[in-house]
Amino acid sequence: MDLAIREEADDTMDTSARRHALDARLTAEGVDLLWCPIPGGDAEYLTGYPRRNASFGVYEHSHQWASGVVLRPGGAGPVFVVPRGFSAFNPPGIEGELVSIDYRDDAAAVLRGVLERGGAPARIGVAGRTWSTTTLAMLDLFPGVEAIDCTDVMQRLRWRKSAEEIAAMERASRIADEAMREVVARVAPGVTELDLATEVDFQLRRLGARTPSFDTGVFAMGVNDGRDASTRISARVLAAGDAVSFDFGGVVDGYCSDFGRTVFVGEPDAEFRRCHAIVVAAFEAGIAAATVGATAADVDRATRAVIDEAGYGSWFRHRTGHCIGLDTHERPFLSIDDETPLETGMAFTIEPSIFWPGTVGVRIEDLFVLEEGGCRSLNAFPRDLIAV
Amino acid sequence: MDLAIREEADDTMDTSARRHALDARLTAEGVDLLWCPIPGGDAEYLTGYPRRNASFGVYEHSHQWASGVVLRPGGAGPVFVVPRGFSAFNPPGIEGELVSIDYRDDAAAVLRGVLERGGAPARIGVAGRTWSTTTLAMLDLFPGVEAIDCTDVMQRLRWRKSAEEIAAMERASRIADEAMREVVARVAPGVTELDLATEVDFQLRRLGARTPSFDTGVFAMGVNDGRDASTRISARVLAAGDAVSFDFGGVVDGYCSDFGRTVFVGEPDAEFRRCHAIVVAAFEAGIAAATVGATAADVDRATRAVIDEAGYGSWFRHRTGHCIGLDTHERPFLSIDDETPLETGMAFTIEPSIFWPGTVGVRIEDLFVLEEGGCRSLNAFPRDLIAV
Repeated sequence: MDLAIREEADDTMDTSARRHALDARLTAEGVDLLWCPIPGGDAEYLTGYPRRNASFGVYEHSHQWASGVVLRPGGAGPVFVVPRGFSAFNPPGIEGELVSIDYRDDAAAVLRGVLERGGAPARIGVAGRTWSTTTLAMLDLFPGVEAIDCTDVMQRLRWRKSAEEIAAMERASRIADEAMREVVARVAPGVTELDLATEVDFQLRRLGARTPSFDTGVFAMGVNDGRDASTRISARVLAAGDAVSFDFGGVVDGYCSDFGRTVFVGEPDAEFRRCHAIVVAAFEAGIAAATVGATAADVDRATRAVIDEAGYGSWFRHRTGHCIGLDTHERPFLSIDDETPLETGMAFTIEPSIFWPGTVGVRIEDLFVLEEGGCRSLNAFPRDLIAV
Repeated sequence: MDLAIREEADDTMDTSARRHALDARLTAEGVDLLWCPIPGGDAEYLTGYPRRNASFGVYEHSHQWASGVVLRPGGAGPVFVVPRGFSAFNPPGIEGELVSIDYRDDAAAVLRGVLERGGAPARIGVAGRTWSTTTLAMLDLFPGVEAIDCTDVMQRLRWRKSAEEIAAMERASRIADEAMREVVARVAPGVTELDLATEVDFQLRRLGARTPSFDTGVFAMGVNDGRDASTRISARVLAAGDAVSFDFGGVVDGYCSDFGRTVFVGEPDAEFRRCHAIVVAAFEAGIAAATVGATAADVDRATRAVIDEAGYGSWFRHRTGHCIGLDTHERPFLSIDDETPLETGMAFTIEPSIFWPGTVGVRIEDLFVLEEGGCRSLNAFPRDLIAV
């Protein structure tokens, strides 16, 4: 594997409006420029420069540490700094200037040249996930320069979605619904989790997703063994009594969906029925709590209260949800520690669960967008108990 | 999707020997400690703390920026700092101390407490891919502290593989061979690239790989259209005249394989036959050049000379290969800019190609380990022209 792959450019979104909104924030931060690594979600958001598909073992090209885009307040266009091994396969088509670093170039010198246009910078903003290699090199290139973490700037810029972004996530969510319909028909004793995950990933892409949003999970829990939700796929052969949880999404125009249901194999026992009903009630409590002006933590408290009161609180072991967009997990998080007020245009999951190894596993997850009247699901798959 | 997944711990490798080797390097760097982010390849290498499977949209938990492992020279054990949302699903079993950051904790205070054990640090080493958020926070926590990029330290520590590491990559490579045998039988007019990629990924996991090493590529090139190698999978229906390149690998015990062949659909034309022969000759020239004491760039020059002399140099658009291990791309790179001398135990790909959109696409790729007598392929799949 040694191609620097350029996936299709995101040309459906108005990135110039995003850069305009960024401009005021950069001025407020007092930074001379913002650096976002390429590939990365912040760079894609601001310029359309697409990320590549996910890789377990990390990719790296010569001078990769110096790969990114420079954005300056005041309306100058983006300047992309990209290693030759990466740009050789990049078709043109994105607005901005391309500075290519050839294999035997001095990458630090090229980077310095781009950063000091208009004078040596005094304050450089960096996207939070910029490699430390890069930021430490910048501090070394310009003695006395300040490096400012712009994580918060980018999170706030990205967290209210436009109509186009919501439309992309709605398409991605409908693909997830349809994939689930195809796959439920294949859940049966004798089938493996791996068979079902393979079918999920195939259906997502057949239906138009570029790639799964994250690693698809298909995990059977219940009385048959002590399996926990942390093993996302196994070669396990399904048997009556298994409750198979699905957790997946697909990517459309760079935007993620995220969806989940649990399917019972055989005749559900009383414990599963009880827990399914509790999770549905928690899910509905979360929907009711997710209103403009409520905080992200309020939604978490609402779902958790239902599960706590039913006596299963110890087995709801994760936050209620998270915002989503170009990335799977975006701020704010629907988590007890995040008191961010919810605003219209925020898109988030609500996904309460009871995952009790050896006893029961059940979760329901939809993707929602917050509107003036409350939150609206982008999924259309039923929430009723499914048994096959 | 909101589980912090702990994949199986890597308990097949002797990580204490690795930490012992690290010790001398940290002392030489004069750092008080090394910080490696979790999840990450450096942390897995040094402690066995496993990475999770790849995700297109990034994952993030509360306090994720403060998630990592601290290693100090002098033989103290690893100290893991992990957010509660992440550790809740982590079974125990790795040697070391776990400091969990709960949702409403002050993560910076927790991090400070761990870093200043034994006194405020003067020099902190950071793995290169540590988020800038983290490194800037450390600089802020300890005024006057130096942050040292330890990319080079970790690359050198990781680049000569042990017998156990080679054995894992050999198993991963044999899985790739076997998956290729299964999939070649399915290449035919009317089948889509997506069908074949689905089968590759299924076979990799069926045969025992935990996950693909990177996003599987199945791309048809040739006279039928102007398709370039940068689109790794499409819904294209294969037809006679397509040359379908495969590029994939699987993960065993955390270690990646990386393999590639091109299959011609129908009767190969003269151009394909000619280019296939050139690529085989380049591949063999690379093998001959990869000897102890030669440099990584020497191998690149050897393969490139063959393709240049045949007149196709413009269409060999990437480096000859790269080292591989826990990550897909590790140092040294078999690239014109990398004059690192090759040493026994280095594992790398040799993967020359001719990718000329609209005309021809062909590549051969194996994974090799360097031994005293030269390099040995970990793959066993034939390199002959394949036509179906």
